[in-house]
Amino acid sequence: MKPEDILEQYKEGKINLTDALKHFTKKGIEEMGYATIDTDRHKRTGMPEVIYAAGKTTEQVTGICKRMFEKGIDILATRVTYEMYESVKAIIPEIKYNNTARTLSYKSNQNNEQQLNQSYIAIVAAGTSDMPVAEEAVETALFLGNNVKSFYDIGVAGIHRLFDKLDEIQNANVIIVVAGMEGALASVVGGLVNKPVIGVPTSIGYGANFGGISALLSMLNSCAAGVSVVNIDNGFGAACQASLINRLVHK
Amino acid sequence: MKPEDILEQYKEGKINLTDALKHFTKKGIEEMGYATIDTDRHKRTGMPEVIYAAGKTTEQVTGICKRMFEKGIDILATRVTYEMYESVKAIIPEIKYNNTARTLSYKSNQNNEQQLNQSYIAIVAAGTSDMPVAEEAVETALFLGNNVKSFYDIGVAGIHRLFDKLDEIQNANVIIVVAGMEGALASVVGGLVNKPVIGVPTSIGYGANFGGISALLSMLNSCAAGVSVVNIDNGFGAACQASLINRLVHK
Amino acid sequence: MKPEDILEQYKEGKINLTDALKHFTKKGIEEMGYATIDTDRHKRTGMPEVIYAAGKTTEQVTGICKRMFEKGIDILATRVTYEMYESVKAIIPEIKYNNTARTLSYKSNQNNEQQLNQSYIAIVAAGTSDMPVAEEAVETALFLGNNVKSFYDIGVAGIHRLFDKLDEIQNANVIIVVAGMEGALASVVGGLVNKPVIGVPTSIGYGANFGGISALLSMLNSCAAGVSVVNIDNGFGAACQASLINRLVHK
Amino acid sequence: MKPEDILEQYKEGKINLTDALKHFTKKGIEEMGYATIDTDRHKRTGMPEVIYAAGKTTEQVTGICKRMFEKGIDILATRVTYEMYESVKAIIPEIKYNNTARTLSYKSNQNNEQQLNQSYIAIVAAGTSDMPVAEEAVETALFLGNNVKSFYDIGVAGIHRLFDKLDEIQNANVIIVVAGMEGALASVVGGLVNKPVIGVPTSIGYGANFGGISALLSMLNSCAAGVSVVNIDNGFGAACQASLINRLVHK
Amino acid sequence: MKPEDILEQYKEGKINLTDALKHFTKKGIEEMGYATIDTDRHKRTGMPEVIYAAGKTTEQVTGICKRMFEKGIDILATRVTYEMYESVKAIIPEIKYNNTARTLSYKSNQNNEQQLNQSYIAIVAAGTSDMPVAEEAVETALFLGNNVKSFYDIGVAGIHRLFDKLDEIQNANVIIVVAGMEGALASVVGGLVNKPVIGVPTSIGYGANFGGISALLSMLNSCAAGVSVVNIDNGFGAACQASLINRLVHK
Amino acid sequence: MKPEDILEQYKEGKINLTDALKHFTKKGIEEMGYATIDTDRHKRTGMPEVIYAAGKTTEQVTGICKRMFEKGIDILATRVTYEMYESVKAIIPEIKYNNTARTLSYKSNQNNEQQLNQSYIAIVAAGTSDMPVAEEAVETALFLGNNVKSFYDIGVAGIHRLFDKLDEIQNANVIIVVAGMEGALASVVGGLVNKPVIGVPTSIGYGANFGGISALLSMLNSCAAGVSVVNIDNGFGAACQASLINRLVHK
Amino acid sequence: MKPEDILEQYKEGKINLTDALKHFTKKGIEEMGYATIDTDRHKRTGMPEVIYAAGKTTEQVTGICKRMFEKGIDILATRVTYEMYESVKAIIPEIKYNNTARTLSYKSNQNNEQQLNQSYIAIVAAGTSDMPVAEEAVETALFLGNNVKSFYDIGVAGIHRLFDKLDEIQNANVIIVVAGMEGALASVVGGLVNKPVIGVPTSIGYGANFGGISALLSMLNSCAAGVSVVNIDNGFGAACQASLINRLVHK
Amino acid sequence: MKPEDILEQYKEGKINLTDALKHFTKKGIEEMGYATIDTDRHKRTGMPEVIYAAGKTTEQVTGICKRMFEKGIDILATRVTYEMYESVKAIIPEIKYNNTARTLSYKSNQNNEQQLNQSYIAIVAAGTSDMPVAEEAVETALFLGNNVKSFYDIGVAGIHRLFDKLDEIQNANVIIVVAGMEGALASVVGGLVNKPVIGVPTSIGYGANFGGISALLSMLNSCAAGVSVVNIDNGFGAACQASLINRLVHK
Repeated sequence: MKPEDILEQYKEGKINLTDALKHFTKKGIEEMGYATIDTDRHKRTGMPEVIYAAGKTTEQVTGICKRMFEKGIDILATRVTYEMYESVKAIIPEIKYNNTARTLSYKSNQNNEQQLNQSYIAIVAAGTSDMPVAEEAVETALFLGNNVKSFYDIGVAGIHRLFDKLDEIQNANVIIVVAGMEGALASVVGGLVNKPVIGVPTSIGYGANFGGISALLSMLNSCAAGVSVVNIDNGFGAACQASLINRLVHK
Repeated sequence: MKPEDILEQYKEGKINLTDALKHFTKKGIEEMGYATIDTDRHKRTGMPEVIYAAGKTTEQVTGICKRMFEKGIDILATRVTYEMYESVKAIIPEIKYNNTARTLSYKSNQNNEQQLNQSYIAIVAAGTSDMPVAEEAVETALFLGNNVKSFYDIGVAGIHRLFDKLDEIQNANVIIVVAGMEGALASVVGGLVNKPVIGVPTSIGYGANFGGISALLSMLNSCAAGVSVVNIDNGFGAACQASLINRLVHK
Repeated sequence: MKPEDILEQYKEGKINLTDALKHFTKKGIEEMGYATIDTDRHKRTGMPEVIYAAGKTTEQVTGICKRMFEKGIDILATRVTYEMYESVKAIIPEIKYNNTARTLSYKSNQNNEQQLNQSYIAIVAAGTSDMPVAEEAVETALFLGNNVKSFYDIGVAGIHRLFDKLDEIQNANVIIVVAGMEGALASVVGGLVNKPVIGVPTSIGYGANFGGISALLSMLNSCAAGVSVVNIDNGFGAACQASLINRLVHK
Repeated sequence: MKPEDILEQYKEGKINLTDALKHFTKKGIEEMGYATIDTDRHKRTGMPEVIYAAGKTTEQVTGICKRMFEKGIDILATRVTYEMYESVKAIIPEIKYNNTARTLSYKSNQNNEQQLNQSYIAIVAAGTSDMPVAEEAVETALFLGNNVKSFYDIGVAGIHRLFDKLDEIQNANVIIVVAGMEGALASVVGGLVNKPVIGVPTSIGYGANFGGISALLSMLNSCAAGVSVVNIDNGFGAACQASLINRLVHK
Repeated sequence: MKPEDILEQYKEGKINLTDALKHFTKKGIEEMGYATIDTDRHKRTGMPEVIYAAGKTTEQVTGICKRMFEKGIDILATRVTYEMYESVKAIIPEIKYNNTARTLSYKSNQNNEQQLNQSYIAIVAAGTSDMPVAEEAVETALFLGNNVKSFYDIGVAGIHRLFDKLDEIQNANVIIVVAGMEGALASVVGGLVNKPVIGVPTSIGYGANFGGISALLSMLNSCAAGVSVVNIDNGFGAACQASLINRLVHK
Repeated sequence: MKPEDILEQYKEGKINLTDALKHFTKKGIEEMGYATIDTDRHKRTGMPEVIYAAGKTTEQVTGICKRMFEKGIDILATRVTYEMYESVKAIIPEIKYNNTARTLSYKSNQNNEQQLNQSYIAIVAAGTSDMPVAEEAVETALFLGNNVKSFYDIGVAGIHRLFDKLDEIQNANVIIVVAGMEGALASVVGGLVNKPVIGVPTSIGYGANFGGISALLSMLNSCAAGVSVVNIDNGFGAACQASLINRLVHK
Repeated sequence: MKPEDILEQYKEGKINLTDALKHFTKKGIEEMGYATIDTDRHKRTGMPEVIYAAGKTTEQVTGICKRMFEKGIDILATRVTYEMYESVKAIIPEIKYNNTARTLSYKSNQNNEQQLNQSYIAIVAAGTSDMPVAEEAVETALFLGNNVKSFYDIGVAGIHRLFDKLDEIQNANVIIVVAGMEGALASVVGGLVNKPVIGVPTSIGYGANFGGISALLSMLNSCAAGVSVVNIDNGFGAACQASLINRLVHK
Repeated sequence: MKPEDILEQYKEGKINLTDALKHFTKKGIEEMGYATIDTDRHKRTGMPEVIYAAGKTTEQVTGICKRMFEKGIDILATRVTYEMYESVKAIIPEIKYNNTARTLSYKSNQNNEQQLNQSYIAIVAAGTSDMPVAEEAVETALFLGNNVKSFYDIGVAGIHRLFDKLDEIQNANVIIVVAGMEGALASVVGGLVNKPVIGVPTSIGYGANFGGISALLSMLNSCAAGVSVVNIDNGFGAACQASLINRLVHK
């Protein structure tokens, strides 16, 4: 609804002052003292409010989950410890925990969006050690209603492993490449496909890897043109971006 | 054509040895001594071969343009000096130079792809000083056959300038946000729209900006989930990624 | 008292040698072997001597608190572990511990400054995870005799949460903005208010956040002009600066 | 005017639709193609729109100055080359150029705010080489209607030079400390006064100074509590913050 | 000759005191005031003394070349400006200048080592812009008596260009990979061949390339095990290392 | 077998479609869900597939070892915890664990390559603290079939310790220099021998060592020409490179 | 003894072959497998061999101490854990452990050098938290036979504490300044005394302190000319340098 | 004179108020508007006021020189351009310019301190390219009244060049080591002599040298204990420190 429409409706008495103001202040906030849940975010950005558990206490994570559950809001939490999981599970028994991805998720039936048929997101990981980040992307993409195909441990040190899967990767709508160390896989994939590639550098490696800087810089400097990058270890963010792209096809 | 089909056709004598091998070695290369033009890239990745002029001599840039022109390949060159432009223009009078973007472009009629109707890419720049990077994105997106709407000088220091244009920005298929200094614009836009946002940090600023690192880190750490990032000042790369996304809608 | 006055008084016998010298050597020091308490600091800089507990042993922290308590000096300690708290509490039962802020404070009645009426410091935090730093600022500002209003979890990913509180924020004398990740909140607030804004980058985030560098650089490069910055996670320092500003109004 | 008042006035017909909408879209924008002048900023943030000339062409700077001059808006431009000055002067003969500060300023009579009596901002610079940055702060503070006292070349290598001026520095409402190299002056001043200190690290120095990082880190890590910091070489920003503080006293 | 042999010979009067001492002080030095030519280095390390011209004046470079020429020592100088070349050519007309590599070289007939038959060093460069560094490697390798095959502009964005040349690359004794931007080529080559690979990161690129750091870190973190790295843009050093390896085969 | 040969054999019916395709897809992959073992790597690159245990769970490491053992593939694993060792030993009792190097290795008789006679790799370590990295290099070099001589604790602070061993070091085919702190040993050795030197910077040190950056930069900037470098603490990679070099002599 | 003298004595039969060779190979090495004790270092550099315990196992530290003790060599070890201390004490009961400095020391009577009379080294520390580093310097300086006066907790936030002690500091032969955070104390002291000042930056602080980089850069960029710097937290190294200086006076 | 003595003398009328105050305010300042000459520094710190010309205009440098010359103060200026030299020479014809060091110096006869007999400072430079920094140290040390012996181009790539001069280096009172690239020379010299060594890292090198960081870190991490470091390219500072040390011997 556009501002002029709201003003018109208010003038005509179709909506009252409180409701008119809500449109301008864009309420949609649920206050919790330590958290201000942005209940409107899903409608506004296509992304639901997601709980980033790192730096929060178990009590805070549990409290936010409880409140969202009670309000019928679907739950996705990332960087969740096992202890947090157990605390939330005591309250929401149907909550699901992915041990590798360290994600917590809950989706009620009435919120279930139709899975987008046929089209899928490809998630390609260079090594076994990159799996936690790749799995975070998988969980997030599924939560957001996408189909996903994942391809693990096909780094450039044995590049034929990649060629073996290339057709299936190429047929995705969007490709997430998860790689640590030198992160060359993003460039190589980007040079072989005609779909948007989102690189996720991981902190896997040691020494001059500097906690993922090496892979991050590699991907930012990719000589292949269709590659963009998200933060180190940010499987969640890559899946959000990929989901927004994947939905374009079906809007 | 899949490997088994090639093998079958060769066995049946439908193609000869040279042609069969070409499929496996994926030829598509034009050798020039100092350059190996990847004439096949457009078909493979949806991106044409583009000339990155920085670090090349005027002679090399002119030579590559000439060869591509003779072969009927469309030309896009970035980071082109005025001197290079004059050298190329002597050979290809219809070449176009964008002084702000420092791009050179040439598109023959027969290569003209149909502009994708209605759907467009939004290119949002925080400040006047970010215009060279934003214009590089504009030129690239147009070259790749997209419609573009650009919005300049609407940084967060006067955030109402952004709200004024929000509807038009939101209606794009994909949004490129170009910003230097603290690069906050990418997060703010990312928190307000439900379309993929590609951030382009620029090297605009001074001191602790460190040639664009400040904006780069801001965008990588964006608290808005649907934001991915390309290299500092890489308007070209952002437009490539945006174009791949924009095409998904019409494939 | 100016040097010439001291000399004059000494010459005239109004003060003795020891007292005259004290003015030049500005004594006000309490020696403890491992610490030299600057008992005069409050008078000189408007800031009391505060104990930075990180890097000190529990014994040292307890010893300094004990000595200050015995001398009737009010106590504020930051970065205090729970173990330190228990050790100090055994000696000073009325000591107060803020578990989130990790601060220890004690204020005797006779030292109680009149709370500055009406005027207040606004403390705005972007996310729940930034609360420990924000609470350190709150505790410090209160200890220094200021009124405080705090606003938590209103980051730019859902910028309407900020607009909702803008009037109350704008009416403060000085605004502290606490934010991690990309720290964009400081720029956004700085562009909307006409009061001094002090940014506190936090180490909240991961990957290319680099322990707070991302937010720090963002705030230093803020395109909004009235923003200054303190060290990463330095809620204490921001509150000190804010208190000095807030007092200007009432001097 | 609060949203409910606007709605009420519109309903009662006191304002028409266009005017009502203006309040919600917070117009105050002057479009110039390459620039979107935020004519409303002064009212909103107490800071006028200021032209940051670096990265803009002489044509753009001249164009913006001309437009502001025609609209009766006062002009302050920073990082202005002599060539830009000459171009602007051809149009606005009364424009003033400070050669050291590299600022351009123009203030019409009708915009002249009353200089705040008695209270002043102290601007302290460590070395002769820091003068360009200090002078940028002086010009900005004066433009914003403040009294200024400046103290140059009194770095810590000869700390008695500072003590000599300490009373006058202490009596300011707010103190700007401009220092390059190791930037120790900010800590030393911060430990001696009871007024807010704003540190401006400069890029003066060489080697491990790293373009001002040394002074920047020093000031951020100041052991004196009342010190905040702005970007390297950002005399302008420090003066804006100082002006906001100085005005609090007189609001 | 071992120390005990020298002592024995001296005792027996076969060598005099000066000669005996020379063995212990390992003379082989040619003093020039501003330079101490290590005339013995070739014998000791298999590498001749080479002139690194950057940071030297034209007079110094010319003087050192003249002295070496007079002594019959072969000359290789790197990072040589055209002005230096002209100055040296005036004295040594047969000196050779490679304009791309910026090297100066002179090899007298009597010093000509037999080119190592059959075995060769492969020098692979990712892009046209990497040619100056690759050519420095070529010139150095030739100067040191190796056969060289070079392969230019075959970066991973069009990886089939590499596969086309793979057999010839694989048949070298040692492979130098020169690449800027994300430097992925070193990993890809390292994963495909069973020969030692020496990576040379170049400073080609912009933004988050940071003058070659991106490619340097990529190569250091290569997931392919047989890759070592030299300094950014150090084509000379890579060729020295490659030459030492290539000679092992023929020792 | 070259592509044309495969095509010919297929045409002639000597190989069937599946087998022909295998050549083009270069199978040699063993899928395990979380790992894709590159069983073909040894043949292709001369390096066997090695398990990098950091970032993998004990279960994953054990599972991969078990699978390789069952397939008769020799095993080398690096960065192995004692807990992992115990888990693998329960399945493969003859597995060998080097406590200092933290490597796990197993070599079946039938895979035993002939140790290369006489020629050896010298592994030189600057300090006792560098031993874990040096031992990783030793274990890897032995596993790859090389003779090794190691020289420990002969850093440049007591340079005569190096001279004492110089002959033996010089007689190796290739020299690995392992050093932390300032890493000067690589330059000193590189200036004294005529064999390829591979530097391994270690993270040994503190403060401005920055986890090995100091030694890494030292080695990259070595003024001795025949030195190349691998990642910080990467004893494994240095040994791989050294082994490829050592084998050249015997190919 | 000069080389010619050794040769002469050997020729004349005054020394035998073994002894002559020892002079050229500068033996003085005690081999222990994991360590090569440089028993000659004290004579050569004026510094005894000191054990840097970090990165060594308790067994290695104990073993080296035992061997040195048996040989009558005095022992100084730094970065020693309490567990190491207990292990060494079981063998050398008279060993002394400084709990703050984490040093282990033992000095036999016969090795006791005369304490240098009157002249002393001043060790000045900015804060209580800097004491571990300052105490390491104290222990080392005492071990090397110097008198020491230490001054703790006199940072620049309360600069009068420094002035109070200035005479005593000035009268030292050499001054060690230990400071974390912004490290300004080194510059301030350097500007007030006419003796060499050695700065020791410490890792005390947080956030933009970056583990001591802030203080390190401050000291390196000191505007006071007579200041040099050692590694972060390197109290040991500062004391070695100070001791070499202090001895010059008495040589 | 101690504070109590001044007070006593004032009380007894031996000194008047102005003179008494001078002691407390420690005058010794010469105001010039853009510079506050610290005329007292020489007496206080043993270092004369020296002009750091970088960042100053030719007019400022000339003005300061003129004023010092008129007051009979000796002049040393560093980082002086040739243009500045010509401007100063027009006023002070006897001024001396060292073209390599870029220093300006003038010493009147009456200020000539006796050169310290016999004892000297050794200045050792690794390469010809390090000469400008080494010469700055030479000029400064001579200006401060020291004897100097310099040793150029004896880097570790040909370490025998160093051994050749070792005796003469060892006999200095203090040794300055100037080195770029990997800066290993400081460690090697520090391990061979028993005198204080001051390292001066230079910005000579390229790539991963990062403008001198490589050499700086090397020297800070030196495994030889008696080495301290000054800022990159700071030949001046090293000579100041060395002079303070050298004077200790003769005080």
